[in-house]
Amino acid sequence: MDRHYFDWAATAIPVSGEGPPPPFGNPSSRHLEGRIARLSLEDARFRCAKILGVQPKELYFSSGGTESNAIVLHSLVLRKNTPLLVSAVEHPSVGENAFILERLGITLGHIGVERDGRVSEKTLETALAKIPGTRFAAIMGVNNETGAVMNLPALVKALRNREGPPIHIHSDLVQALGKIPLDISRWDLDSASFSAHKIGGPKGFGLLWLRKPLETLNAGGGQEGAVRPGTENTAAACALAECMERFAEPGAVKAAYDAAVNRWAVLINALRNLTRCNLIPEDRRDADERFSPWILQAGFRGIPGEVMARTLDDAGFAVSTGSACSSRLQKRPVLEAMEISRERSLEGIRISQGWSSSIESIEKLIAAIVKILRAL
Amino acid sequence: MDRHYFDWAATAIPVSGEGPPPPFGNPSSRHLEGRIARLSLEDARFRCAKILGVQPKELYFSSGGTESNAIVLHSLVLRKNTPLLVSAVEHPSVGENAFILERLGITLGHIGVERDGRVSEKTLETALAKIPGTRFAAIMGVNNETGAVMNLPALVKALRNREGPPIHIHSDLVQALGKIPLDISRWDLDSASFSAHKIGGPKGFGLLWLRKPLETLNAGGGQEGAVRPGTENTAAACALAECMERFAEPGAVKAAYDAAVNRWAVLINALRNLTRCNLIPEDRRDADERFSPWILQAGFRGIPGEVMARTLDDAGFAVSTGSACSSRLQKRPVLEAMEISRERSLEGIRISQGWSSSIESIEKLIAAIVKILRAL
Repeated sequence: MDRHYFDWAATAIPVSGEGPPPPFGNPSSRHLEGRIARLSLEDARFRCAKILGVQPKELYFSSGGTESNAIVLHSLVLRKNTPLLVSAVEHPSVGENAFILERLGITLGHIGVERDGRVSEKTLETALAKIPGTRFAAIMGVNNETGAVMNLPALVKALRNREGPPIHIHSDLVQALGKIPLDISRWDLDSASFSAHKIGGPKGFGLLWLRKPLETLNAGGGQEGAVRPGTENTAAACALAECMERFAEPGAVKAAYDAAVNRWAVLINALRNLTRCNLIPEDRRDADERFSPWILQAGFRGIPGEVMARTLDDAGFAVSTGSACSSRLQKRPVLEAMEISRERSLEGIRISQGWSSSIESIEKLIAAIVKILRAL
Repeated sequence: MDRHYFDWAATAIPVSGEGPPPPFGNPSSRHLEGRIARLSLEDARFRCAKILGVQPKELYFSSGGTESNAIVLHSLVLRKNTPLLVSAVEHPSVGENAFILERLGITLGHIGVERDGRVSEKTLETALAKIPGTRFAAIMGVNNETGAVMNLPALVKALRNREGPPIHIHSDLVQALGKIPLDISRWDLDSASFSAHKIGGPKGFGLLWLRKPLETLNAGGGQEGAVRPGTENTAAACALAECMERFAEPGAVKAAYDAAVNRWAVLINALRNLTRCNLIPEDRRDADERFSPWILQAGFRGIPGEVMARTLDDAGFAVSTGSACSSRLQKRPVLEAMEISRERSLEGIRISQGWSSSIESIEKLIAAIVKILRAL
C-alpha cells in the first residue's frame, strides 16, 4: 500500500544509506510504521530474554551498562532508610553513584575483597555487621580490571539467609555476559545490568533485568514500562539480540570460555616465567576458576603501566591500564581494595581478549613484552 | 601496521556487516583504536557545535532528548532550595521529572499558557509571583503537540531582568532543531536539549548544551566531562553530525522552513474549509509565526482522535494523537493547559511533516480526511 508519513514529530524518516530502509517508526506510535518498529523491538526483547533465561517483561532496554546501574541505584533516592552496601571493586557506574547516594544522606558501606579481588562470605559478613539495616547490595559478576569472578550464588544465598528486612541484590554483569556461564534466574538476584558493545553490539545500548518492576527516578513518556523513558532504540535492540544469540547463548559461551582458557594459559604461563612480571593477584594460575579467562591484570617491575601500555601500543598491541572508564583517574581503587601496594598498582596493565583473539596474536604479544623488558 | 587488539574488556570488536569496519575503539582508551574513536567523537562534537553556534566543550552527547532533559532536572536533587518553574506544556521528560523533584521536596510551579498554547510574559510573571524564590525555569522551544513556538528571547529576557537570585533557564529544543531558526548563544539560555532521531539521525542519541559545566546526579567513568558517564556512542555522534550539517545548518533551516510554510498553507486552508474541523487553537492561520510549520493539531467534531488516527492509518496515512511519548496516557495535558474542552481535546490529532513531505502527499491526506468525514 502507498504510505504517507505524517508523524515526523514522533520520529523523522532517517537519512538512508545503502540497503533497505530500516524499520524507522517510533515504537510508541500506533500507526503501521510504529507497530512495525514495536514488533522489531519486542522480537529483540524476546530473543534477549530467551538467551538469558528470563521473561521478556523483565528486560528493559537502556543506553548501556552505566545507565542500567544508575537506574537501579538512583531508584533509592525515592525511598527512605535504604542503607546500601556495594563491593569495593565495583565499576565506577556503581561505586561512584553509591557515593552520590551517600551525599544525599543514604548510609553507605563497602564490602571488602580478599587478596584475590573476590568478595567472600567472610568479607560480606563483616560489611553486613557494620551496616545492620542493609536494604540494598551491589556485587558485580566479573571485575573489569582483574577478571575476578564473584561467587554470586553463594553470596546471594548468604544475603537471603540473613535475618532482617529483605535486601535488593543488584549485579553488574557487563563483563560476565557472553564470557562466563550465567544463570540469572537461578542465582536469585533482583536486578542485573548488561552492555551491548562489550559483546560486539552497538555502543550506547544495554539491558537492565529486573525481577520485579521498580519505581525509578526517571520520568518521561513512560517507555520501557516507565523504568527507562525515551524513544526506544529499535535498531540497537535488533543488533543486540543478534549478538546475544551469537555470543551469549549458553552453548556458545561454554565453547568460547574453554577456548579462552586455553589461549590464556599460553599467556599466563609465559608471563609467570618472566622474572619482572607480577601477575595481579600473584597467585593467579591458568585455568583458574576464580578468574575470567578473558581478562588478565599484570605488572612489570620498574615500568609504570602507562609506559608499558603506550610502548605496546607503539608496537601494535592495544592493552589498557585501568578500565577505559577510569582512564582519566590516576587511581586504581580496585587494586587498592586488594591491598596491592601503590607501586605494584601503578605498574598494572590489563590485557583482555575476545572471540577473534588467536594464539598466534598472543604469542606475538608475549614476544613484544619480552622485547620491551629487554629495552626498558 | 599489523594491529593486535587486547582490550576487549573496554569494548569488543563489533560484529562486522558489509563495508569497511567502523572506528570501533572505546574513545576513553588511550591506544590507537581508542584515539581514532576519540578523534571521530570530537570531530562530531566540533561539527555539531559549529552548526549550533556554540563551543564544542559546551556540548555533551547523551542518549536522547529525554535523558538530556533529565540530566539537567535531576541535577537539582543535589542542591538545596531550588524552587523550579516549568511551563504547563512541557514534554513529559521535563513535566514528569519536575513532579519527581516535587516529591523529593523541591517547590514546583507551572507557567501557564495563553489560549494559543504559548507562554507569554504575562503568564510567566504570574508564575514567578507564585514561586518568588525561583532558581530554575524550563520552557520548551516548540511544543511537540501543537507546534506552538515560544518567544524564548523575550521570555529569557524577562527572567533575567527580574530581581533576585539567578535563574537557570533550560529549554527543550527537540522539536525546534532543524525546524525553526535557532540562535542559542544569543538567546541567553543556560542549557538546551536536542534529539538525533527527530532530524533523521539514530534513535537513542541526543545532545545536551550547557553554557557552564553542571554537577549532575550521574556518576560513573567520567565521560563527557562527568556530565554524562557511559561509553560514548561514536557511530551515533558521527551520524548526528552528518544530519546536523544537512538539516540544522541555518541556511538549510530557513529554506526548509519556507517550504514547510507553503506546504502547510495547503493543509491548513483546506482544513479550515471543512465545517467539522477545529484547528487547535481555532485561530491558527497559515504562515502563522506563532506556530511551527511542521506540526498541526486539529480535531474533527464527533470523531475521537484515536478513531480518526486509526482510520487514516488504515487508508495509508500515519498521523498521531498526542505525542508518541504519551500514547499510553488517556490525557491531553497540553490541550488542557490551553483550556481546550475535554471533548475537543479527545478529538485532536497531530499531523506533522518533514523534509520529504510533498504537496501531493498533503493533497492525498486532505482527500482521505474528506472521505472519512463523509463516512463517519
